[in-house]
Amino acid sequence: MDLATIIGTFLGISLVGYAIFSGAGEDAKAFISTSSAMIVIGGAIASVMVSSPLALFLKAGKFFSKALFHKEQSTQKLIDDLVGYAEIARRDGILSLENATKDAEDPFIIKGIQMAVDGTDPELIEQIMNNELDAIAERHEKGKGVFDSIGRYAPAYGMIGTLVGLVVMLMNMDDPAKIGPGMAMALLTTLYGSMFANMFALPIADKLGARNDEELLLKTIIIKGVMSIQSGDNPRIVEQKLKTFLPPSMRNEGEEEQEQ
Amino acid sequence: MDLATIIGTFLGISLVGYAIFSGAGEDAKAFISTSSAMIVIGGAIASVMVSSPLALFLKAGKFFSKALFHKEQSTQKLIDDLVGYAEIARRDGILSLENATKDAEDPFIIKGIQMAVDGTDPELIEQIMNNELDAIAERHEKGKGVFDSIGRYAPAYGMIGTLVGLVVMLMNMDDPAKIGPGMAMALLTTLYGSMFANMFALPIADKLGARNDEELLLKTIIIKGVMSIQSGDNPRIVEQKLKTFLPPSMRNEGEEEQEQ
Amino acid sequence: MDLATIIGTFLGISLVGYAIFSGAGEDAKAFISTSSAMIVIGGAIASVMVSSPLALFLKAGKFFSKALFHKEQSTQKLIDDLVGYAEIARRDGILSLENATKDAEDPFIIKGIQMAVDGTDPELIEQIMNNELDAIAERHEKGKGVFDSIGRYAPAYGMIGTLVGLVVMLMNMDDPAKIGPGMAMALLTTLYGSMFANMFALPIADKLGARNDEELLLKTIIIKGVMSIQSGDNPRIVEQKLKTFLPPSMRNEGEEEQEQ
Amino acid sequence: MDLATIIGTFLGISLVGYAIFSGAGEDAKAFISTSSAMIVIGGAIASVMVSSPLALFLKAGKFFSKALFHKEQSTQKLIDDLVGYAEIARRDGILSLENATKDAEDPFIIKGIQMAVDGTDPELIEQIMNNELDAIAERHEKGKGVFDSIGRYAPAYGMIGTLVGLVVMLMNMDDPAKIGPGMAMALLTTLYGSMFANMFALPIADKLGARNDEELLLKTIIIKGVMSIQSGDNPRIVEQKLKTFLPPSMRNEGEEEQEQ
Amino acid sequence: MDLATIIGTFLGISLVGYAIFSGAGEDAKAFISTSSAMIVIGGAIASVMVSSPLALFLKAGKFFSKALFHKEQSTQKLIDDLVGYAEIARRDGILSLENATKDAEDPFIIKGIQMAVDGTDPELIEQIMNNELDAIAERHEKGKGVFDSIGRYAPAYGMIGTLVGLVVMLMNMDDPAKIGPGMAMALLTTLYGSMFANMFALPIADKLGARNDEELLLKTIIIKGVMSIQSGDNPRIVEQKLKTFLPPSMRNEGEEEQEQ
Repeated sequence: MDLATIIGTFLGISLVGYAIFSGAGEDAKAFISTSSAMIVIGGAIASVMVSSPLALFLKAGKFFSKALFHKEQSTQKLIDDLVGYAEIARRDGILSLENATKDAEDPFIIKGIQMAVDGTDPELIEQIMNNELDAIAERHEKGKGVFDSIGRYAPAYGMIGTLVGLVVMLMNMDDPAKIGPGMAMALLTTLYGSMFANMFALPIADKLGARNDEELLLKTIIIKGVMSIQSGDNPRIVEQKLKTFLPPSMRNEGEEEQEQ
Repeated sequence: MDLATIIGTFLGISLVGYAIFSGAGEDAKAFISTSSAMIVIGGAIASVMVSSPLALFLKAGKFFSKALFHKEQSTQKLIDDLVGYAEIARRDGILSLENATKDAEDPFIIKGIQMAVDGTDPELIEQIMNNELDAIAERHEKGKGVFDSIGRYAPAYGMIGTLVGLVVMLMNMDDPAKIGPGMAMALLTTLYGSMFANMFALPIADKLGARNDEELLLKTIIIKGVMSIQSGDNPRIVEQKLKTFLPPSMRNEGEEEQEQ
Repeated sequence: MDLATIIGTFLGISLVGYAIFSGAGEDAKAFISTSSAMIVIGGAIASVMVSSPLALFLKAGKFFSKALFHKEQSTQKLIDDLVGYAEIARRDGILSLENATKDAEDPFIIKGIQMAVDGTDPELIEQIMNNELDAIAERHEKGKGVFDSIGRYAPAYGMIGTLVGLVVMLMNMDDPAKIGPGMAMALLTTLYGSMFANMFALPIADKLGARNDEELLLKTIIIKGVMSIQSGDNPRIVEQKLKTFLPPSMRNEGEEEQEQ
Repeated sequence: MDLATIIGTFLGISLVGYAIFSGAGEDAKAFISTSSAMIVIGGAIASVMVSSPLALFLKAGKFFSKALFHKEQSTQKLIDDLVGYAEIARRDGILSLENATKDAEDPFIIKGIQMAVDGTDPELIEQIMNNELDAIAERHEKGKGVFDSIGRYAPAYGMIGTLVGLVVMLMNMDDPAKIGPGMAMALLTTLYGSMFANMFALPIADKLGARNDEELLLKTIIIKGVMSIQSGDNPRIVEQKLKTFLPPSMRNEGEEEQEQ
Repeated sequence: MDLATIIGTFLGISLVGYAIFSGAGEDAKAFISTSSAMIVIGGAIASVMVSSPLALFLKAGKFFSKALFHKEQSTQKLIDDLVGYAEIARRDGILSLENATKDAEDPFIIKGIQMAVDGTDPELIEQIMNNELDAIAERHEKGKGVFDSIGRYAPAYGMIGTLVGLVVMLMNMDDPAKIGPGMAMALLTTLYGSMFANMFALPIADKLGARNDEELLLKTIIIKGVMSIQSGDNPRIVEQKLKTFLPPSMRNEGEEEQEQ
């Protein structure tokens, strides 16, 4: 569960809600416009349907829930696990890893170790694991792309809605009393478009990008770890190699890197 | 037939149409302006004629129909086919593939296998197939570019039309009754430009980009498969290598990758 | 002679002209403003003079005429020529190519073949030809850059002119009758800037980019062809290698690639 | 302590403050709006919470203090130190470096030399140090990204606030006396958003980027130096190699590069 | 002395000055606003102080004078010189180059030849010279970056100033006579920001980028030349290799490349 996403979204909505209530008082309900929401959200969905393959569009919900309910894996623990496997391999032979990794959190480890145990050619192992890494990165990139598209098309439909409203208003300028409310209504779609993009779609796209980076880092550590174990590296070397992926403050050697 | 493209386009137009009708009522027909459409669509076409080589411009319709009527190939089936060829090559020798691939869906397979059967040097096979891949990617990139250009120039002509309308209106401000309708007319080209770009050209460009990615993935799988078959790889290895291109949920080994 | 460029430019100007005449009627001549044209065109020239080396700036006309009068070379014919040279080299020895290529359309072929005939080291031939390719690409890139700059600075000067006009108008708001015409005049520079950029500079820049891609493709085919001939490849192999640069529809083998 | 950051920020605020006081006189306090600040700053924080992993968001303060209190290391001194180590290694053997580097300013040197002293394989040393370099670059990139995001979302919330204010104002246009102040209030959030982005977030992001470049240069020099020392290079060669990272004006050989 | 920069700047200022005088007549002096200049120029300086390291900021003047007073080196002459050195090295041995290059225009040549004369390992020579090339490119990139930043922040401060002016004006809308002049004053900062960016900062940044490209080309030619001389290449080969960097029209062999 990603608390920051929930809190951030709630905070953003509260702030805009507060701005509306403190400014409009009892008229605040005038800010609710089903037709504006329909144009902006519906329009963004329509354009994403055209721009993305259908299968990808249908998976948008899954990507969204990933941004919300992602359980962060500990890099520290992953490295400890891999160093542990290196020790087992050193002590009991690489074949004993088949049992040891049976309950590994990440099936990517199981797959890699299994290939090492099977005596697959190291180059082939690395190639297969890197292929998989690239494929994961590409799938994630596309998921992020759906929300980037929403963030691009929602404001565009907001502007289209506002232009329609302005034209309607301008065609009926005989009654000056109607000008203000007409323009207010027209601006609502721009407001909705901007809110939908900046409070929802773009930050979610950014978070999916960050999640992707995290996951690729973990997978990269696994690949380096498996290759290192496979080549029979000393567990201390394995640890030294993998620790470089940790920020200095998380290394338990007490050393401190000069970053200030 | 790409249903999402049709539905998405129809949905977008309906939403804007609804906005117009609910706002303008009987005056909705005032939103139809042949001259505005001429400036925006004609102008975008004019600028694309200048910016693209003539041959490319004339093929725009073909690219468009590709976005609409693209038949998706199954990655799963392609991999199964290639693994099948690997088994035949293993069992009956690579020469027997000439017959087996005769009815392959993708002529790219036929070409690759043919070269392998002819005993062409593996490096040359890979080079020729990669050349072809690059050439396909470049042709597609250019097709996408035409729609990207339309999406860039349509709003520009929309703005040019609006500026012309504004200047005309401003020169005749003696009659205040004409200001509103004059400005309404002026804004129509901006509205048309924005609609043409965001509801048609840019999403189509995005979809052509996604189609290109899909096709390049298939071609890449074919190249990897042909090279693997050519080098006499064990069918199981071929399968393992190619399966990495599938998302985990589509792999029939029941394994599940940790992506949540 | 590039007809599309001429027709496209003419079409764009006609459309805007039509919009002006149909809107302004007899007042259309008010859209002609020498001072607006001076600010936008002169300003764009001024900024490009500052931003580009003088020699490049002076060559802008040459680049422009290239966009207009470029004679397209046939990729098909080039490949046929190169395959022809490969046959001659196979039959009569590589030395006989010196005569055969004497009348080649592209001096780049003559230069490459000459080096092969002279017995220059293949690696050196490739290096020299690739250096030349890079140098051509860089010169073209700069030519495109001049028009990209014009397309960037013309609207900027258009806005500067409009701001000047607005300030002048706002300082003299005592006479309401002058507000309309004042603003109309002010908007003219923005209109000119947008037209100069979107109907002329940016599409020309795009076309120069497309021309560059075409020419680099031809030069790349020549390099591959010369290297293939030099290494004594079978003419059929040479053809197979070079044909991959053609779109499938242009290959005379009747094969069809699945691109729909 | 980075004086330029402090002075620049102070100068920017003073200039805008002066503009406000000289324009608004006694009404200057009307420019202070807690609710506008809440929407812009709170909104930017909200969107960054959604878009960045929580851990990164919480470290924003640390990144900021880094931009403020960064102590620049001298490239010249670093090179002198490394050349000094090379001399010691040449004279007394590489093992003697363990003591010599004990007090090195940068733990990265200590780590590298330690591995060299331990007789670690040179390739492994380079790989571990480069891994560490990449990891540092990535952490810094993310720190910069937080401020880039703030610089992107603050103006977006500023526009959202202004749209809310405009809609409120337009719904109450009966009283013309309220139009001016209503619009003034509405524009304040855009002003705040633009100030927060351009006077704080974006420049800080740029400075973090520049800091990162500086630090990576230092680390790169250290890696080149350690590898050079490890391979037993003559100290003069080490110096020659490392001096190329200095701008010519800082080289004490009196040579001058033609850069004018 | 770079005449184009001077003429271009003067032309730009003249055009805007003409626009102001022809529009405002005697009121032209109202366009001079010390406070607007202070906000835009001072603000841009403030943000660049925050965004760049202090040392870089202080060197901005040096970069500017480089854009103005850069003396172009002749590529043709450089190649002739290098070919001359190759001939001397061929005739009298490489050691004789020490004297021959003593008066070379570019110290980069002296340094490279000196290393070749000293019998430094060719790989090391290339590495040191490439390091230097990268370091020069990076320093120039940063110099360009300062002016890019000014071009980005000046319009931002222009908008901030205009927003301040608008808010002041809107708070005092009781007196309609003040609206016009108030808005005129407010727009002046936007005008100043746009002029400062588009007539000064951005073109200068572009020119520094072009200068950098030129200088890197010269340095690249020197590196290729020195490496070619060092390896004892025939002077004719050296010439052939280096001539590829010249545009065809500048080659004295009379050959013409098909670029029309």
